Amino acid sequence: MAGMQRTLPRNRPIGVFDSGLGGLTVVKALKRVLPYEDIVYLGDTARLPYGTKSAEAIQRFALQDTEFLLGRNVKLVIVACHSASSVALDELQKRHKLPILGVIDPGARAAVETTRNNRIGVIGTGLTIGSGSYERAIRRYRRDVEIVARSTPLFVPLAEEGWLNNDVAYRAALAYLKPLRAERIDTLLLGCTHYPLLKRVIARALGHRIRLVDSAEETALSARALLADKSLLRRKARPRYRFYLSDLSPSFREICSRFLGEPVNDVIRATIPD
Amino acid sequence: MAGMQRTLPRNRPIGVFDSGLGGLTVVKALKRVLPYEDIVYLGDTARLPYGTKSAEAIQRFALQDTEFLLGRNVKLVIVACHSASSVALDELQKRHKLPILGVIDPGARAAVETTRNNRIGVIGTGLTIGSGSYERAIRRYRRDVEIVARSTPLFVPLAEEGWLNNDVAYRAALAYLKPLRAERIDTLLLGCTHYPLLKRVIARALGHRIRLVDSAEETALSARALLADKSLLRRKARPRYRFYLSDLSPSFREICSRFLGEPVNDVIRATIPD
Repeated sequence: MAGMQRTLPRNRPIGVFDSGLGGLTVVKALKRVLPYEDIVYLGDTARLPYGTKSAEAIQRFALQDTEFLLGRNVKLVIVACHSASSVALDELQKRHKLPILGVIDPGARAAVETTRNNRIGVIGTGLTIGSGSYERAIRRYRRDVEIVARSTPLFVPLAEEGWLNNDVAYRAALAYLKPLRAERIDTLLLGCTHYPLLKRVIARALGHRIRLVDSAEETALSARALLADKSLLRRKARPRYRFYLSDLSPSFREICSRFLGEPVNDVIRATIPD
Repeated sequence: MAGMQRTLPRNRPIGVFDSGLGGLTVVKALKRVLPYEDIVYLGDTARLPYGTKSAEAIQRFALQDTEFLLGRNVKLVIVACHSASSVALDELQKRHKLPILGVIDPGARAAVETTRNNRIGVIGTGLTIGSGSYERAIRRYRRDVEIVARSTPLFVPLAEEGWLNNDVAYRAALAYLKPLRAERIDTLLLGCTHYPLLKRVIARALGHRIRLVDSAEETALSARALLADKSLLRRKARPRYRFYLSDLSPSFREICSRFLGEPVNDVIRATIPD
């Protein structure tokens, strides 16, 4: 604890949690956008997926995950899980003083800034789309916009299987995205942390004219703005990355490195207190 | 409790549990094969999937699920979950006197009885295939058999999405099953309770000559043989079905009815005591 006290606030790590490994796409974006920051990642793989659980259960898990990161002395918590951002972010922000950032608002803002014809498509898991949280977030920035939302549940298992641009992925993308194209959207918001892996096949199925907004990317940019605003940016330093997972499946290393874009070391099995 | 005492053993319900809703394909088969039996189903949706948890956790959950069903006065417990059948069945049978049936052994036996060229394919989730439990079960019936096992993780989300026989399902089936066809198997064991929904597309991708063994179907047939053997078959009566789920997701009704082949009523939110 003495060590914690001595750490300057700006030198404390950024905490990121997700129900599983998808949030590593946010870590990948953070590493690029904020190359000097230490990052502590928590993937609650023992209880994944959150998306099929009730809002009540997700809220309980999100509170526990946040407590875990606070125990690692983080300066900012990023909720890199759309389900938890949808149903638990308000509660987390109410309970804690430190800045807590979700993945929904940054993407919503970027989509509004990107569209020219005011027709925005949103894709995500069943829970994210069903919750309507993207619609609400987008309308906070602009009211007179058409939003076409669709759940694309196969995209997560495709990304986890590593079928990123094969025939199956392309057919799935076509089946999901054709109706969106018919609605003449000019911007598609990727509302799930797994989807950046499928960017190429999504772009192929949509055609060039529709611009993609990547919520992982936008969340990293928002984190930078937020830290700068609070004078919490770390100065030039060699960063340290730690990855805590609540359960280690046989394939976690392979999936981690696919999402992170590089091999992962420093993976620690963690127990999240109830 | 007085009511329980009066119930004749053969008139007591069959208990079925699974980590989620996949086990409903076993219920569907039971309804067809044993049309007079009452059935109590427990889906532990709050803790699904079991497949990514440790063996120890799965054993604990399976014991709790079994206790829950015993509290409903069942005459037989069917473990309609491949993960729990793999790692917890022995322990359950050791602790309890009533008959307890898993989903692995019935399919293994049927596959051995079906094959002519002694080349059997097995597909399932990563955990089921990785555990080697089908290989062991098959070799208990016959040692000199070639087994080609492969995990097919996209099949569960395809079944849950209702993409049972479209282009995407077909391409996925081809990608997974072509290597099995090349191994000249003549029998394919569907080692996951979700897979019966994809039977048609699997058959299409495999060609006519390969015979499918459906573990849900075989489990129902084994249950009938077991009850007949113990004089526990119920006589002609109008059956009653009750469904307990430990968590209710927004889409559970739709998925339930797809797996069961008809709408579900009588769904009760249940707490499984630790």
